Amino acid sequence: MPIRRSKVLVKWIIENQHKFQLQLSAVRSCSSSLRYKELEENVQVQAEIALSAESPSTLPRPHITPEISFKYDDLQVRLAAPYQLQPKPEAKDLGFGKYFTDHMLKIHYHKQLGGWQKPEIMPFENLSIHPAAKALHYAIQLFEGLKAYRGVDDKIRLFRPDLNMERMNLAAQRSGLPTFDAHELIKCISRIVQIDQEWVPHSETSTLYIRPTLIGTEPTFGIMAPESALLFVILSPVSAYYKASSDGAVSIFADPNVVRAFPGGVGNRKVGSNYGPTIEATARAAKMGHHQVLWLFGPDHQLTEVGAMNIFMVYINDQGDKQLSTPPLNGLILPGVTRRSILELASQWEDLTVKEEVITMDRVMQLNQEGRLLEMFGAGTAVVISPISRVGFLDQDIVIPTMKQAKPVFQRVKDTLLAIQYGHIEHPYAVVIS
Amino acid sequence: MPIRRSKVLVKWIIENQHKFQLQLSAVRSCSSSLRYKELEENVQVQAEIALSAESPSTLPRPHITPEISFKYDDLQVRLAAPYQLQPKPEAKDLGFGKYFTDHMLKIHYHKQLGGWQKPEIMPFENLSIHPAAKALHYAIQLFEGLKAYRGVDDKIRLFRPDLNMERMNLAAQRSGLPTFDAHELIKCISRIVQIDQEWVPHSETSTLYIRPTLIGTEPTFGIMAPESALLFVILSPVSAYYKASSDGAVSIFADPNVVRAFPGGVGNRKVGSNYGPTIEATARAAKMGHHQVLWLFGPDHQLTEVGAMNIFMVYINDQGDKQLSTPPLNGLILPGVTRRSILELASQWEDLTVKEEVITMDRVMQLNQEGRLLEMFGAGTAVVISPISRVGFLDQDIVIPTMKQAKPVFQRVKDTLLAIQYGHIEHPYAVVIS
Repeated sequence: MPIRRSKVLVKWIIENQHKFQLQLSAVRSCSSSLRYKELEENVQVQAEIALSAESPSTLPRPHITPEISFKYDDLQVRLAAPYQLQPKPEAKDLGFGKYFTDHMLKIHYHKQLGGWQKPEIMPFENLSIHPAAKALHYAIQLFEGLKAYRGVDDKIRLFRPDLNMERMNLAAQRSGLPTFDAHELIKCISRIVQIDQEWVPHSETSTLYIRPTLIGTEPTFGIMAPESALLFVILSPVSAYYKASSDGAVSIFADPNVVRAFPGGVGNRKVGSNYGPTIEATARAAKMGHHQVLWLFGPDHQLTEVGAMNIFMVYINDQGDKQLSTPPLNGLILPGVTRRSILELASQWEDLTVKEEVITMDRVMQLNQEGRLLEMFGAGTAVVISPISRVGFLDQDIVIPTMKQAKPVFQRVKDTLLAIQYGHIEHPYAVVIS
Repeated sequence: MPIRRSKVLVKWIIENQHKFQLQLSAVRSCSSSLRYKELEENVQVQAEIALSAESPSTLPRPHITPEISFKYDDLQVRLAAPYQLQPKPEAKDLGFGKYFTDHMLKIHYHKQLGGWQKPEIMPFENLSIHPAAKALHYAIQLFEGLKAYRGVDDKIRLFRPDLNMERMNLAAQRSGLPTFDAHELIKCISRIVQIDQEWVPHSETSTLYIRPTLIGTEPTFGIMAPESALLFVILSPVSAYYKASSDGAVSIFADPNVVRAFPGGVGNRKVGSNYGPTIEATARAAKMGHHQVLWLFGPDHQLTEVGAMNIFMVYINDQGDKQLSTPPLNGLILPGVTRRSILELASQWEDLTVKEEVITMDRVMQLNQEGRLLEMFGAGTAVVISPISRVGFLDQDIVIPTMKQAKPVFQRVKDTLLAIQYGHIEHPYAVVIS
């Protein structure tokens, strides 16, 4: 199966190589303007929130004291002894985040000792945490998720790690946790992946998932920014995040009674607080036979995210063109690395209009009734692309023809991403580290 | 200072003893109806949320599988060796949650081993936690806060621990964590407090704070209910939660741009996710010279909570009566044990109208301008009662005459609570455990 997939992919890439070359130069020239656009949107959202609350938007934003970052040059490495090495599981048993590699990276922060301490790579072990640590009581914690891919050339690549680090620093700022120099952490992560490189699966259906985590460790009960923290990175060889239906698509449930994020909250930051509160609704959806929750917002039932993914829709727009749409970064939506990459890549495809726009459930149902809705899919680092074929909403069961398209956009997006990630094509998104 | 306070308190109690007797019988007869009222309100809120989202309120609620609880009779105790005992700090150095006692209570939950394991009391130690534990990534965690008071009779009392346990189980349900028999945990907690009873301060200005915590420990990356968990209880001798101004009152800042909780979220459950996201706003308020944040909600700026406390207001109502008001339990507000006790106690005071009602910032400002706003205060287990004398809101600085009242309600409420907690009067709220 993987071999057949791979052959199809290579064939497709050879046929489409010329387009990638076009995209490559286009992305190179447009990435700075896109970044600017995203920042601008955030500012606009802040202003809108302020406006809707009828307050001046001139309130002082917190002044972030830039921390003196830890440095890769100070990294200390203590390798696991041969007897400590774990057997590597079969690819078919991997699941998602069940197995961990032989090493971990730890970087302590102690304000009273001058801040960040020296990074350490050491054998994988349990953390010794004071039971009053703020991370366990007040959810002062955040994480990131990225992957290391073993390419066709046997080289190991990361996918846009700078974007994960940037987002991690934004989450740290929002959580009263210390910030750091993104490039120093990328270098430390590259090193631990090199050390555990035999854990990077020799397969294009599995990868090594990298989980940087930052937790407040100060052991006092005051609800305030912690004076000590721990940044750690663990690695897990993974395959699919979840089992889809037999056709590869998932069914999702939209419950207007549960809300994932809110203006003035932390929906656009990758912090633990966005996830715990979603478990009950996800379990309820599962009992009704759905794979994930479609998170709605507002009286007009705007689509925001699906499960822990960004959501995309393909439809024939009012001008008769095929359009790929995703909700804008309005403060309620995680700025996904996959989301951004899809927007950047697809905006170079001449046969597709790409747009960030508000999508309501009414619009979804209307387009579907008119036969104009072609596809719906979720996108994220863990799942890559997850096609959606069914949406449960109120008393309705909306069937989406995602799997009925001859040349679906979701597959083209997925193939393009995988081609970059596994080194079938050279692209600035993929960073070779080993 | 403590001695003088105590004398004043005793004097006041002797003068007012007859009222307490009245209250006592009244509370005994009305507590069940009040409980019903609170539950009813919750149901109503659910219906309102459903209504506002234009959806039928007939969606199935999750079916909770009742867990077979751990049992106090299975409790195993391993006492600290003499050399492990910590010196007890001076009362003046206590702070809030800086020092911990010699023992802790741990109860493990492993679904694959049949659920709850035997409770254990052991010497206080760091927790050994797998770095992938869901509590550290997805904020699958909740806590409670209650206190053990050393009374005038040297007996140790808890204050309405059944309410904390009830709330803890509701939070567990909401978080995909296992529930338990409240009375079994109260017995285990009573036992550890007995063991560490010399840590219960011999003072009426400090107490032993009890922090039950429940965290998801399953070490896998799926965002779902954990199959393993740890319930632990640690104890900390505490004095004041924070330093107020010289007059004992605090200044609070109301920022309409930040939101603590929202409909469809977890604002009415004591889970970690409600706290981490508040730190940035609290730090910003502190930089502007305020002690806490007043959390508003909605376009009409409804008051919800202040800091991590419930909020109360005393004013002359439209009928010319003195009224004590607090916002209703609408799903955004933590059902505080102190809040409920104040409502129950004060509803028996004949010279005061007590009401749960929506309070907007416009109403606060209007009442204040008309000279009808008398007091504003926060209430919670950690602080007991915290009078508020200033509210920063938009470009305004609202001065509240809380500290200018001859016989303030906040002081009467506080004295009543402390009298019950420290055993100056017998009351069913206070449970003698040692």
